[in-house]
Amino acid sequence: MEDQSPKPIRCKAAVSRAAGEPLVIEEIVVDPPKAYEIRIKIICTSLCHTDITFWQAKVAPVFPRIFGHEAYGVVESVGEHVEGFAAGDAVVPTLLGQCDHCTSCVSEHNNLCAAVPVTLAPGMRRDGTTRFRDAQGNPLHDFLAVSSFSEYTVVDVNQVVKVDPAVPPKLACLLSCGAGTGKTFGVTDFVNPSQLDKSSVCEAIVEMTGGGVDCSFECVGVPSVMTDAFRSTKPGNGKTIVLGLGNETDQLCVSALELLFGKCVMGSALGGIKPKTDIPILAAKCMSRELELDGLVTHEVGLGEINTAFDLLLQGKSLRCIIWMDK
Amino acid sequence: MEDQSPKPIRCKAAVSRAAGEPLVIEEIVVDPPKAYEIRIKIICTSLCHTDITFWQAKVAPVFPRIFGHEAYGVVESVGEHVEGFAAGDAVVPTLLGQCDHCTSCVSEHNNLCAAVPVTLAPGMRRDGTTRFRDAQGNPLHDFLAVSSFSEYTVVDVNQVVKVDPAVPPKLACLLSCGAGTGKTFGVTDFVNPSQLDKSSVCEAIVEMTGGGVDCSFECVGVPSVMTDAFRSTKPGNGKTIVLGLGNETDQLCVSALELLFGKCVMGSALGGIKPKTDIPILAAKCMSRELELDGLVTHEVGLGEINTAFDLLLQGKSLRCIIWMDK
Ligand SMILES: [Zn+2]
Ligand SMILES: [Zn+2]
Ligand SMILES: [Zn+2]
Ligand SMILES: [Zn+2]
Repeated sequence: MEDQSPKPIRCKAAVSRAAGEPLVIEEIVVDPPKAYEIRIKIICTSLCHTDITFWQAKVAPVFPRIFGHEAYGVVESVGEHVEGFAAGDAVVPTLLGQCDHCTSCVSEHNNLCAAVPVTLAPGMRRDGTTRFRDAQGNPLHDFLAVSSFSEYTVVDVNQVVKVDPAVPPKLACLLSCGAGTGKTFGVTDFVNPSQLDKSSVCEAIVEMTGGGVDCSFECVGVPSVMTDAFRSTKPGNGKTIVLGLGNETDQLCVSALELLFGKCVMGSALGGIKPKTDIPILAAKCMSRELELDGLVTHEVGLGEINTAFDLLLQGKSLRCIIWMDK
Repeated sequence: MEDQSPKPIRCKAAVSRAAGEPLVIEEIVVDPPKAYEIRIKIICTSLCHTDITFWQAKVAPVFPRIFGHEAYGVVESVGEHVEGFAAGDAVVPTLLGQCDHCTSCVSEHNNLCAAVPVTLAPGMRRDGTTRFRDAQGNPLHDFLAVSSFSEYTVVDVNQVVKVDPAVPPKLACLLSCGAGTGKTFGVTDFVNPSQLDKSSVCEAIVEMTGGGVDCSFECVGVPSVMTDAFRSTKPGNGKTIVLGLGNETDQLCVSALELLFGKCVMGSALGGIKPKTDIPILAAKCMSRELELDGLVTHEVGLGEINTAFDLLLQGKSLRCIIWMDK
């Protein structure tokens, strides 16, 4: 009888070998999914500020590493104990898990699943090991247990969401992080600090708005930007929402007095969405054109041109660049 | 024709001459109220952590100074342009002003009046000068433009609230700060860090509550306590409310990652109440016993024993100690 269990796959991936240096397209080996894991053939992925933050790796560098956490793909194979998924299913992986059983998952107000908690350290969430090796057999670290800058990846079943295969791949891809983080809040304006000649962004914003904004969003995960976002809000009732993922040791520091006098700072991972519950809802809204994500996609490249996607985002020239695996 | 205008008053006050040193009961001179000011005969006052913070004056010491910002008294005289107040009115002064005309005052969600903004620097809010002199004629600084540790004080009309004279003085006194800050939130439990043998308060609280509290309140205005309060809350949706007033340069620093994953920190001066609107409502609730403040008053002393009130609060032995002027 033939062994039907999944075998290691040789495929291409964009490997980050050193902090801030161009990714290298390499042939790698992706192990079969273990129990409660799914191996996904990535169709497309997109680049987000969070990838950039960890690729720049000013704190706690972890290399070589495969970045990418926003993607769309199809299930290639499933490990033991995986229920509800089969080869060929259209899926998006997400950095946040959802087990549907822990106290966070059963609460309406908490999207931080305690069963597969997010960590910035590499490793699959159940056993801490990687499923990637390079051509020489040396381990390659994963990123957020998603690592979508690869033709194939392995993701925990709690971090995989089935989506309607009718949703265009590039939009489904954005649902896994960017769309949940940005659009659900109805963000309409962006201010680019590098394009201002004011001494500080917050002074500029306070001046532009005659006293400060009601609400500010920090989307890049940089502590100084969080502080600026806070200072840009109105005294007495300004609200700052932190959406950007930074480093483990990052501290947000704000004036205790400004806070006391009525300001508010809150964080929201993926804009507060519960992936398995809300991504299918967002996908349906994409189909009905109630949610318009097309405008977010400013560029599209093939995996071989992934460094162009990095350049565009670093230069502030793109919002989201889609990276296609088959191009 | 006899000059009817208010004259300087000689009276007793508890003067803080140096950081952290016992107050000194001195004979001082209180100037007449200027335009938009009211001179108040203090009946009783109470001691709050905020007085302690500035008396300890680890940052930016300002001495000699007359502390006290929670009080009950009667109007002695009024300055030019003061409307709606007359000698004999029962009043409480408050650190927050309310002009009823600025954008903050007309907003439902903002209690930070822009007309007479709170500053931690001494000085009346319209002209920055003091109304107090010592027996040698040297100026004595005020505190929060209230300075109630004195038989008489002068306060801006926007910081004075008329109350029903039927409300017991010691309860009315608490309405000017303590009651607004604590009870309106329904605080029921206090944890005293000095009585714990855990290495950190937050570890103790996280352990006690099996993962963290839903909501924590910081009432003393100390940055490290704010951070502990934040760390004591539940991952994913913990909320920290800062009520304590500290120094101008104090920074609240929290983990950006804990914040991102769903925590919230907000400040609330006087628990978000608008003094002129809400103190009369709280006073009515005191009268109907809907609001029970008696339990907060753990000690009562005369002005001459004010240092005992400091000792009791510093030793964690009192919640509120009432200081009576006529005892
Ligand atoms: Zn992202
Ligand atoms: Zn869960
Ligand atoms: Zn107080
Ligand atoms: Zn006002």
